[in-house]
Amino acid sequence: MSEILQNLTSTEDLRRLSLAELRTLADEIRDQIIQTVSANGGHLASSLGVVELSIALHRVFESPRDKIVWDVGHQAYAHKLLTGRLARFCTLRQFGGLSGFPKREESPHDCFDVGHSSTSISAALGMAAARDVRGGREKIVAVIGDGSLTSGLAFEGLNQAGHLDKDLIVVLNDNEMSISPNVGALSSFLSRKMTSDLFMRLKRETENLLNHMPRFGRDLLSLAKRAEDSLKGFLTPGMLFEGFGFDYVGPIDGHRFDELIEALQNVSKLQGPTLIHVATRKGKGYAPAEENPSLFHGIGPFDPETGKVKAGKGGTRSYTAVFGETLVEQAEQDPRVVAITAAMLEGTGLGEFSRRFPERFYDVGIAEQHAVTFAAGLACHGLRPTVAVYSTFLQRAYDNVLHDVCLQNLPVAFAMDRGGLVGADGPTHHGVFDYSYLRHIPNLVFMVPRDEAQLRRAMATALAFDGPFAYRYPRGNGTGAALEGGAQPVPIGKGELLRQGEDGVIFAIGVSVAEALAAAQQLQTQGLSLAVVDPCFLKPLDRELLLGEAIRTGLVITVEENALQGGFGSAVLELLADAGVSPRVLRIGLPDRFVEQGSQDELRALCGLDAAGIVRSIQRFVGLPEAAAAGDGAVGSPAIC
Amino acid sequence: MSEILQNLTSTEDLRRLSLAELRTLADEIRDQIIQTVSANGGHLASSLGVVELSIALHRVFESPRDKIVWDVGHQAYAHKLLTGRLARFCTLRQFGGLSGFPKREESPHDCFDVGHSSTSISAALGMAAARDVRGGREKIVAVIGDGSLTSGLAFEGLNQAGHLDKDLIVVLNDNEMSISPNVGALSSFLSRKMTSDLFMRLKRETENLLNHMPRFGRDLLSLAKRAEDSLKGFLTPGMLFEGFGFDYVGPIDGHRFDELIEALQNVSKLQGPTLIHVATRKGKGYAPAEENPSLFHGIGPFDPETGKVKAGKGGTRSYTAVFGETLVEQAEQDPRVVAITAAMLEGTGLGEFSRRFPERFYDVGIAEQHAVTFAAGLACHGLRPTVAVYSTFLQRAYDNVLHDVCLQNLPVAFAMDRGGLVGADGPTHHGVFDYSYLRHIPNLVFMVPRDEAQLRRAMATALAFDGPFAYRYPRGNGTGAALEGGAQPVPIGKGELLRQGEDGVIFAIGVSVAEALAAAQQLQTQGLSLAVVDPCFLKPLDRELLLGEAIRTGLVITVEENALQGGFGSAVLELLADAGVSPRVLRIGLPDRFVEQGSQDELRALCGLDAAGIVRSIQRFVGLPEAAAAGDGAVGSPAIC
Repeated sequence: MSEILQNLTSTEDLRRLSLAELRTLADEIRDQIIQTVSANGGHLASSLGVVELSIALHRVFESPRDKIVWDVGHQAYAHKLLTGRLARFCTLRQFGGLSGFPKREESPHDCFDVGHSSTSISAALGMAAARDVRGGREKIVAVIGDGSLTSGLAFEGLNQAGHLDKDLIVVLNDNEMSISPNVGALSSFLSRKMTSDLFMRLKRETENLLNHMPRFGRDLLSLAKRAEDSLKGFLTPGMLFEGFGFDYVGPIDGHRFDELIEALQNVSKLQGPTLIHVATRKGKGYAPAEENPSLFHGIGPFDPETGKVKAGKGGTRSYTAVFGETLVEQAEQDPRVVAITAAMLEGTGLGEFSRRFPERFYDVGIAEQHAVTFAAGLACHGLRPTVAVYSTFLQRAYDNVLHDVCLQNLPVAFAMDRGGLVGADGPTHHGVFDYSYLRHIPNLVFMVPRDEAQLRRAMATALAFDGPFAYRYPRGNGTGAALEGGAQPVPIGKGELLRQGEDGVIFAIGVSVAEALAAAQQLQTQGLSLAVVDPCFLKPLDRELLLGEAIRTGLVITVEENALQGGFGSAVLELLADAGVSPRVLRIGLPDRFVEQGSQDELRALCGLDAAGIVRSIQRFVGLPEAAAAGDGAVGSPAIC
Repeated sequence: MSEILQNLTSTEDLRRLSLAELRTLADEIRDQIIQTVSANGGHLASSLGVVELSIALHRVFESPRDKIVWDVGHQAYAHKLLTGRLARFCTLRQFGGLSGFPKREESPHDCFDVGHSSTSISAALGMAAARDVRGGREKIVAVIGDGSLTSGLAFEGLNQAGHLDKDLIVVLNDNEMSISPNVGALSSFLSRKMTSDLFMRLKRETENLLNHMPRFGRDLLSLAKRAEDSLKGFLTPGMLFEGFGFDYVGPIDGHRFDELIEALQNVSKLQGPTLIHVATRKGKGYAPAEENPSLFHGIGPFDPETGKVKAGKGGTRSYTAVFGETLVEQAEQDPRVVAITAAMLEGTGLGEFSRRFPERFYDVGIAEQHAVTFAAGLACHGLRPTVAVYSTFLQRAYDNVLHDVCLQNLPVAFAMDRGGLVGADGPTHHGVFDYSYLRHIPNLVFMVPRDEAQLRRAMATALAFDGPFAYRYPRGNGTGAALEGGAQPVPIGKGELLRQGEDGVIFAIGVSVAEALAAAQQLQTQGLSLAVVDPCFLKPLDRELLLGEAIRTGLVITVEENALQGGFGSAVLELLADAGVSPRVLRIGLPDRFVEQGSQDELRALCGLDAAGIVRSIQRFVGLPEAAAAGDGAVGSPAIC
């Protein structure tokens, strides 16, 4: 199997293949992707959707001279297989293996690192502008999905691209769906339902006119207006993009090589900004994924024969599920509770909420900035919005959190899922900066639950609090903490002493609390008696408890799954310095570099944030012999095929 | 004068005025605005442009029950005068006075705090959604300029508003200009030049077809395509917004009360999302501002008779001017140098650059996210972009800095103007978080010049450095440092000992260095001998120099014009703790709250960041008597009329 794929020496070979051979190649690529993703997990549906498009792009354009910029990049598996990475493909998303996203250090064919959505048009436009300054002639192609197009960043790129009038090709990969189904007006545009929608609105508008304004002014009912109205029904996606200064070609069937190749060849000869609209199907060629593209968007290991997802770690429930359930409980009890997601309906656990309370649920699309400012508007007008978002994606809305929510001290809750190390998605997706980018914002309270029971308490506390409130919880399953009855609010800024100790104290937060407790227990066997405190809140810190323990023991160790710069340990240093208390301090957290991909366990081991790593760091700091502690695993070797 | 305005008891009175009286009222308001802004400085041109619109909105809608959300808010002076703030209007933008922006704590008529652009549609949509959840009937109106509409956030709001189909009125205040002239494709849309543009493109497209593709496929040249092409010329702004699901009304003459009031009354009876397109003129009614709206966008005190700007502090040149000149020098010497601004051409000092190197200059509009990712694309492809942006506005692009530039370690320079306390624009505009929101990003180098000569060195260092490089400089004039010859790069992370001392050391950075030197000199008279070190770089810190001085003296004072949480002092604490060095440490910087408006001098005094404040803090910390030091001014009283 994979005969054609295996014998590809470069993308130039693609130009020598017949249409029939290309179709065979597409089948081979799909097999590879399904086999690898079924073993490693990954982004299946979107990669399967662009197999023909990837082949056609590499046949028509001459990468790496020509630049192909993949938006988000989770659809680039076929691109990777076509550009010399078949032999390593089985290491996809594993520690030391191929990235699940384009990565410049991996191949000259990966011209821009991605992970977050909607950057491709801006980046490609930058490359096109650079080409023109340098006098080059290479082609620059951005490949962007319809979901990514709902982000303001993509719009900003389109707006300038149309104005600058540079040679730039935007391939709109329209699969009529972002991670969750699309929700904006643009989506209707693209799916060409515009005609009937507009007809309905035109009808309603006419009724409005007749009912309410018999003498509607002549200016408004001018001939021009009526002429315009009569044209509305003709509005098409093409006209939208033409309006932005692009030439428009399409829609093209994204699974027919003849159409695709001809259209791309034609477009490659055009000048100025051009948008080619390609219709594809998510999960194409693999029935389970075609039937349930949301499930197969990002998926763990599954049985390739049946499409059945393999059981996870089992036992405990995920933080995401506990969050979703608890928010439903809150909404049942408090009519002010509303929920917002940015195209992450299932990922953030809001599926049940959206079904139970459709009129109090808002999926804004891939538009984190708007999600937060929209929440500010909701909060301003009497509601209690919760913005459910991955930590890494809230980075997009930093200014909105600061300027639109916290400056006005509005009661918006930020439920930050995927905080800390997220695993296989790697450096673009780790939620390891939120302590640092949120802690300095005035008025914000920031709680970090150490388990799923505490997550429920954080949510109750947020709802009872009359100001901005963030809480962060990790990807994956909870600790199995008992979830008794209704969750009660806890006092703001109140920490907990979880373990007594005489020789020093560990201040640990969030997911690191359990590791710190295990580390303290192991070090006890070497005669080192450490207390463990969970401050529960990153901000405000429990001044009395933390200072008391610091003074009592004279040795403080902080542990966090966040960048050490400006993070939790840094906050502890500020607290100590401001109080004039000078214990010895060891800060354990993430180093000042981007952390690679791997399983969460591998990465915690790599960064010394598992119990064994914490033990080693403390042993070194206090001068104890580095006896191998229980469970001390060296970091695994990089994945190989 | 101001008889009608003075006798307004509430906005309800507006409904009883004749058209002639409304026109008189508009004149009175313009007089008030011109008199006050000529004395206090402020945003003149945009406020003058919307006098009639503000009156008409308050006549037709019933604020505060109905909500009027002003985008950016610098145009809301007439709104303030109409809603009970005439008596305090002369305190505009002064310490303790009226804010230059809407502010909820100031009036129930200010329903959303603003300052940064493009939030109004999102916020208003949130209010509309909240109204519907609560079963209200009030009207929600967002007033947004055409410049603000170029931001992705506004697009995200539009996109969801059209989809949710809520009763929402968006007033597009189209003055064909943002702070700098508009630069995107959208701008052409709005100015209705579309027809001829499209005609030209259609012509070019046809030529392309004829020249390059005699056998262009039947799918692309289908009947549908041709029918669409023939319609392109009819595309209007109305169709764009209709496409997004809005009913469109306009364009309306924004200076004719009859048109405005009738149109707003009609629109107030419509259901669903409606956009009313109002054409206004920036600076309307004041000839100097009409002639030069860019100059009169945000302006200092001027002579109301002549429009001549009063001389500033005089003497030294502004940081902004030095930046602009130096970048021109760099561009002359290095063809890779390109510059990017986000609608702040003159504000960032790039006017001369844009005229000298038009093909290497990009004004992206109010689109900071795109500005940064576009720069990443430029840098990826061999150029050396400098993104010139106000510190507070770079907050919008935090994720782009992190994910698109620093993750790839690209050589993009961030020239952050208006760092620190900016003065009268107040809490929405202070650039006092950048140390905290940038310091934790891996790969980024962050330099903070203490004077304009050092700014030139920072720029030379940035250009020579092969990775992301930020530098921050304050609003206003430099220290008068000699600007000799060509600036040379300095070693990365190398600090300077500026003053010797035995009893302790002040680590001061940026604009605080001069204050720290003055403070050290004053304290010398009390027998306290303090060294002063400028680390020059926030990141990386000069480990050797800082640790050496800390160990030598045992007393460290840090001074910065940034939030204390996660800022420079926090970085120093991290350095000391990681080295196991425990001097006494006093951190001087901004408190954990939003700082109000006032002159820069007033605010520095208020926050204890002037020399006198630094002296007092140190006296208190080391137990010296708080002798009144030279220049010790108590903070001024709040402004009154």
